[in-house]
Amino acid sequence: MPDLLKDRNYLTQLIHERQTVLTIGLDTDVKKLPTVVGSDVLAFNKAIIEATQDLCIAYKINFAFYESLGLKGWDILEKTIQEIPSNHLIIADAKRGDIGNTSEMYARSVYDTLGCDAITVSPYMGRDSVKPFYREGKWVIILALTSNEGSDDFQKQELKSGQKLYEQIMETTSQWGSAENTMYVVGATHPDDLKLIRNKYPDHFFLVPGVGAQGGDIDAICEAGLNSRGGLLINASRSILYAGGESDFAEKAWKEAMRLNGIMYPHIADKMDSKG
Amino acid sequence: MPDLLKDRNYLTQLIHERQTVLTIGLDTDVKKLPTVVGSDVLAFNKAIIEATQDLCIAYKINFAFYESLGLKGWDILEKTIQEIPSNHLIIADAKRGDIGNTSEMYARSVYDTLGCDAITVSPYMGRDSVKPFYREGKWVIILALTSNEGSDDFQKQELKSGQKLYEQIMETTSQWGSAENTMYVVGATHPDDLKLIRNKYPDHFFLVPGVGAQGGDIDAICEAGLNSRGGLLINASRSILYAGGESDFAEKAWKEAMRLNGIMYPHIADKMDSKG
Repeated sequence: MPDLLKDRNYLTQLIHERQTVLTIGLDTDVKKLPTVVGSDVLAFNKAIIEATQDLCIAYKINFAFYESLGLKGWDILEKTIQEIPSNHLIIADAKRGDIGNTSEMYARSVYDTLGCDAITVSPYMGRDSVKPFYREGKWVIILALTSNEGSDDFQKQELKSGQKLYEQIMETTSQWGSAENTMYVVGATHPDDLKLIRNKYPDHFFLVPGVGAQGGDIDAICEAGLNSRGGLLINASRSILYAGGESDFAEKAWKEAMRLNGIMYPHIADKMDSKG
Repeated sequence: MPDLLKDRNYLTQLIHERQTVLTIGLDTDVKKLPTVVGSDVLAFNKAIIEATQDLCIAYKINFAFYESLGLKGWDILEKTIQEIPSNHLIIADAKRGDIGNTSEMYARSVYDTLGCDAITVSPYMGRDSVKPFYREGKWVIILALTSNEGSDDFQKQELKSGQKLYEQIMETTSQWGSAENTMYVVGATHPDDLKLIRNKYPDHFFLVPGVGAQGGDIDAICEAGLNSRGGLLINASRSILYAGGESDFAEKAWKEAMRLNGIMYPHIADKMDSKG
């Protein structure tokens, strides 16, 4: 893997070249594979990556799906990462976060051992749980307002200050890094909140899961969240991976990615600076 | 591994038999191993487990330290778990938590593939991120007030309701499970809070990290947190693992565990029901 600095300018350039902010989530479930690949998760991932690599700017690896297979899954995880072409951001969707010396170990795992460019981090344990993930040329993607139902339980709790918890978390953590090395997870199921968040944080990139199987509206997300640098990574997983159930799975994945790009394209053409 | 139901009564029985609530954290750092084991993390863990198994009721495996070694580390993690005698609680200290289908995959990994009895879970993403970890005979250990410096950043934020965030999290999540299947992480660095928490939750078990290297006071913790069933798992990691730096490492680990037990014993004798 070449030692490429995937900084903010580089991401903007990728978005400009490919006219998409699509991120593909490799949440590959061995129980949902088409019969043509049997139980070969790696072969499936390879075919998906080959079919979709020109239609996305990032791949997001959901660690849980690999860990559930034990040692074999970890091997597939490592080999899947090696299959991703270097001109993509590789996101470890691992939701890690622990006391300082332990977060440092997770950082080593994800950056040094696996070669990922970014990691999703849970902020609940505070500063010493997040800061060890900052490294030159790497992205820390902090959970702010997630796409799932349970995001209402705590993230939207109102604080004494009047802010919601996720707002406080963004305000505090945005001091620990900058728009050059910090992204936030903002679920596609909260387009109105995304608009407010974009107003407050004009320069940050947001990772937006929850379109496709979870029902988020891409038009609304692009409208609320795109900025002149792109500024979004919109993730789809299941809707692409399992678009086709049989030997056509890679072609159907390509078609679904094309379809999503078709929705994103006019917004990108409209909102991004023409020179990229 | 025998199919033993490690429920609350069983834990209380273990505590009564061994007169300790010590949990040993296997945060094994390959860079800190004594020269006598070279870089053989598994051999080190085996020796530590053999030396200390009669002096603790649980082992807590810190996943980060194994993941940092990649595929080899995952292999060592699996083999370490197989080395732990069945009459101990095996805790996956993994701080997992994600949307429902992903948490379900983490649960499969930790319970089915690895055979652990309990997992630490980050509550930030809410109900569908936590509930998939509930399984008959398993323990969900929810982060409430952690031992690290950064626990002040968000966990102690005051909500509009007047409660602190961690209090709200305990109140809400205590409805999702019961004292029979839910524990909370309460750091040893907050003995005064532990006392208040114990008053509010008389029946729950608490996993208490932060003694030893992090400076928590065992007497204060036992005083504040023990109940008639035991009700605590007090974790020590570095202070036991690295008590001796050379070929005496297992003996020194044993001595340090003995020393910690010596501090716990009078409190246990005082607070627990005599019949266990």
